[in-house]
Amino acid sequence: MRLLLLLALFAIQPALAQQPDQLYTATKQQLDVTKVILAQQARWNTGDLDGYVSFFKDAPDTAAILGSRVVGVSAIRSAYHTIFPNREAMGSIEDSEVIVRALGDNFALATGKYHLMRNKKVGGDALGTFTLVLEKTAAGWQIIFSENT
Amino acid sequence: MRLLLLLALFAIQPALAQQPDQLYTATKQQLDVTKVILAQQARWNTGDLDGYVSFFKDAPDTAAILGSRVVGVSAIRSAYHTIFPNREAMGSIEDSEVIVRALGDNFALATGKYHLMRNKKVGGDALGTFTLVLEKTAAGWQIIFSENT
Repeated sequence: MRLLLLLALFAIQPALAQQPDQLYTATKQQLDVTKVILAQQARWNTGDLDGYVSFFKDAPDTAAILGSRVVGVSAIRSAYHTIFPNREAMGSIEDSEVIVRALGDNFALATGKYHLMRNKKVGGDALGTFTLVLEKTAAGWQIIFSENT
Repeated sequence: MRLLLLLALFAIQPALAQQPDQLYTATKQQLDVTKVILAQQARWNTGDLDGYVSFFKDAPDTAAILGSRVVGVSAIRSAYHTIFPNREAMGSIEDSEVIVRALGDNFALATGKYHLMRNKKVGGDALGTFTLVLEKTAAGWQIIFSENT
């Protein structure tokens, strides 16, 4: 578990309760990736859907599983706008139990749970997991794969 | 898309229909990872659930999202035996639209679709996506993360 960072950003107590003897230390890589996840969440919570999508790498092999597989940032942006057509549909998200692990120096895997909170008339709350693969690029850490359950 | 391999193992026609102008070439890394996926599928289809799980890396940070997050090979094995308690519950699986992309030399991301076929009385057929992260180890390519939707 030394390579793992159990940040448990918004749920630190339950996480500690599960593994009381675990020490949590974060490498620079893990912190840099975590910053991206937090910044992306902040964009969502101000209703900035294009800002949220801007954390994806603009490359033809960037992919997201959004129900079905969507390839390329422009298709991913369109899919998000279809699923979340307005501010109210976006609601707000809260991530928890975020775990970042290195896949070598230039890639990382991040998993966690999300809690989408919104009015019942636009679909209501949702709980699920997210999985991200990120790449260290000249522009910083960028998402090259995303999946939500 | 040059880094991608759209193998479309069991559904090559629909895949080609989507991207008729695409050439499909596979690196050695992509082929090695694909071999693992095919070998794992073969174990499943002979009812060898422990053999299927043996493709996971035996490391404390190996994780699978099986409804909830399961960490470590022994916990992953138990979870699979709980979800698939006997041969009939396992049925058989057929993977398609398998895409393997390199994450540097020693890691790879594989995604695809699965079709689980089994009797209605043990749950019936299921269609979904799978996501794997694999690591090149001294023992060959091994799964370090798995998620099914």
